[in-house]
Amino acid sequence: MKIYRANILFTPTPEAFKVLEHGYVVVGDDGNVVDTYQTLPEQYANERVIDFGDRLLMPAMNDLHVHAPQYRNLGIAMDLELLPWLNAYTFPEETKYKDIGYAEKMYRRFVRDLWKMGTMRAAIFATIHPEATCLLADLLNEAGLGGMVGLVGMDRNGPDTLSNTVEEAVEGTKRVMEHTKNMPLISAIVTPRFIPSCTPEMMTALGELANEYKLPVQSHLSENQSEIAWVAELEPESTCYGDAYLRYNMFGQTPTLMAHCCYTSGEEFELMRKNGVFAVHCPTSNCNLGSGIAPIRRFLSAGVPVALGSDVSAGSGFSIFRVIHYTLQMSKMKWVHGGHKEAFLSLSEAFYLATKSGGSFFGKVGSFEPGYAFDALVVDDSDLNFDNYSIQHRLERYIYLGDDRQLTHRFCQGKEIPAPRIIE
Amino acid sequence: MKIYRANILFTPTPEAFKVLEHGYVVVGDDGNVVDTYQTLPEQYANERVIDFGDRLLMPAMNDLHVHAPQYRNLGIAMDLELLPWLNAYTFPEETKYKDIGYAEKMYRRFVRDLWKMGTMRAAIFATIHPEATCLLADLLNEAGLGGMVGLVGMDRNGPDTLSNTVEEAVEGTKRVMEHTKNMPLISAIVTPRFIPSCTPEMMTALGELANEYKLPVQSHLSENQSEIAWVAELEPESTCYGDAYLRYNMFGQTPTLMAHCCYTSGEEFELMRKNGVFAVHCPTSNCNLGSGIAPIRRFLSAGVPVALGSDVSAGSGFSIFRVIHYTLQMSKMKWVHGGHKEAFLSLSEAFYLATKSGGSFFGKVGSFEPGYAFDALVVDDSDLNFDNYSIQHRLERYIYLGDDRQLTHRFCQGKEIPAPRIIE
Repeated sequence: MKIYRANILFTPTPEAFKVLEHGYVVVGDDGNVVDTYQTLPEQYANERVIDFGDRLLMPAMNDLHVHAPQYRNLGIAMDLELLPWLNAYTFPEETKYKDIGYAEKMYRRFVRDLWKMGTMRAAIFATIHPEATCLLADLLNEAGLGGMVGLVGMDRNGPDTLSNTVEEAVEGTKRVMEHTKNMPLISAIVTPRFIPSCTPEMMTALGELANEYKLPVQSHLSENQSEIAWVAELEPESTCYGDAYLRYNMFGQTPTLMAHCCYTSGEEFELMRKNGVFAVHCPTSNCNLGSGIAPIRRFLSAGVPVALGSDVSAGSGFSIFRVIHYTLQMSKMKWVHGGHKEAFLSLSEAFYLATKSGGSFFGKVGSFEPGYAFDALVVDDSDLNFDNYSIQHRLERYIYLGDDRQLTHRFCQGKEIPAPRIIE
Repeated sequence: MKIYRANILFTPTPEAFKVLEHGYVVVGDDGNVVDTYQTLPEQYANERVIDFGDRLLMPAMNDLHVHAPQYRNLGIAMDLELLPWLNAYTFPEETKYKDIGYAEKMYRRFVRDLWKMGTMRAAIFATIHPEATCLLADLLNEAGLGGMVGLVGMDRNGPDTLSNTVEEAVEGTKRVMEHTKNMPLISAIVTPRFIPSCTPEMMTALGELANEYKLPVQSHLSENQSEIAWVAELEPESTCYGDAYLRYNMFGQTPTLMAHCCYTSGEEFELMRKNGVFAVHCPTSNCNLGSGIAPIRRFLSAGVPVALGSDVSAGSGFSIFRVIHYTLQMSKMKWVHGGHKEAFLSLSEAFYLATKSGGSFFGKVGSFEPGYAFDALVVDDSDLNFDNYSIQHRLERYIYLGDDRQLTHRFCQGKEIPAPRIIE
């Protein structure tokens, strides 16, 4: 058991922060929260308390959409929209992950940067390459981070050098499943790249695989208009893009993440709601590729689950705190340019998406309520806190003005996580 | 004379970077650039060269719209749009600058943060308080930074504790003019807060002052719809918001900065073009307050001069590099949600706005062409440059991923600027 004392903030519900000024959190030997307390109960009176003084202690970030093999392209090549961007920059880069040496160099940096920015769990797209994908799982596992790793299925409309057969995609995913079965926090996720990259045979096989092994699914949905028009041509029998995934049994039949959903409405919206499909909001990416602004308030009002994603490298950084910032800003742009019809998000709502909502895809993750994994960040914001700000204002200032320098401790499932090693 | 060697980038025109890989810049004793060279001319063969090795060397940032007395509120209080935000958060904070001790504490931090993020010149709103405004000029001058400082005129629709009379605004501005007359890089700027804050008498007097002393002018224009509607009520004889400034002789009669211009079109657009009025683009602020997306491509196509502003504290940070990032992203949002009619901006265009275009308000500033002030930043991006990126990609990665940690040297008018001192 461990007991920590600090200024604790978390969001049991989207509506408000629970704030414990100089409060306590008790963490069991299983790495789960026993409970939080404003005053430490008598039964713990003789226990050692690890005191973080005036620092902030909050749930760690969860990144529900990120492409590990796009690491090198971070911060460059954002002069094209989605489809030409994939062909010009992304596919050529991902092809390099056939080389396990290159994969190790880049994947170590990827894991280090997740850690650096305070992301303790992530749903990750790898590539078509089983060896590199298993290596990525190893590196996350060694680092002590949690998440899901997807070997990508893609057998059309990409370069020959970045295509797998249906059998390779199925066997590769099974290999990742097998490889991760003894890793406590890492598992496999079925990952059809997106409809334009996957033949009906690929989709059918991956849908069967997901349902047979009860594996979760991740893919892309309604990111941009050209993509949507293309999917309508490729899948004329589907009533909408989301319906195409549904017909292949990958739209909520098992837990499902759909990244972007910028233009989801009507039937697709209803299918997401009915099937509990997650909309993974990637606002930095959507700004960088000129994709559009997703209707997050509408998703929330309708009860569609929403999580946040960095979408590196279309997203221009790993910080989910930054994604919280953009989530707020883009909800305001939606509000003002949509005639003030949909209220913009509050800070607690956006923080909830990054923590408890996104974390729920991994189990009881993202809150400090009893039984939740103690995934946590300690923030020393003394450089920002020069004028007696409230605890909640201090968190807000950290989100808007802070970076990795203020993060002094990172915990995943109760364990403090040291900096993962990179190869210089 | 000084000679520097590094990887040099600047934008003589918006269309493209001039890149000198391991090139040279020669700076005269007046602090102005003599010229840049790929190979050092014979005449300098025996001169000492200060070699920055593989680092990047580029023009410093110019912030053409920033409110120094909103420093404390940075990163908080962004749950309201402009008009209620002013009343609830901003006016109460600015009132505190009557206390010169408080002003010194905060203004020192303000100057330090400008420096920290690489901004060497700024057009600054102070408050109604002459003593604090002169102190701000002193602190900038001591630090070696350049810019313009405006004592704010505001005599209606604010709290009584934050109002000045017409005479106080005129005399206060003259006092700042007098106070700064021997400061080589600092000058006064006439600063009516915005039409709703200024009676016709205040506007008339400030317009006369600007024209009598040939002082530049800064104010706010067409930031949000409620403000525009209010101005139409307050100034029924004006054909548009911009026309109100024009009628008071503060719309290009002397050099003029108008912040925001989110909704400028039609006649107002034409008046800006004809009178060479600067549109100061503040996209982080416009996102945070839900103001809207300014039509930057239209301004540029029509020849309206455009500069960038942080608009602290509605803008959530001092980094003009971050503002470049948002300028690109918001131009993409305008492009996609406006039916692809107006092309989004390129990196070189956005960089040009932050450097040569914004800098032009201060004279020959913002480029490394002959005769330009050597305002420069040295960037050690070795932590970001792990895979042989091109020089231009390195700049792009710095803009998207870097921060103050990579800035190793800052120059203003040829002098290296050390960290300004703050009061802890």
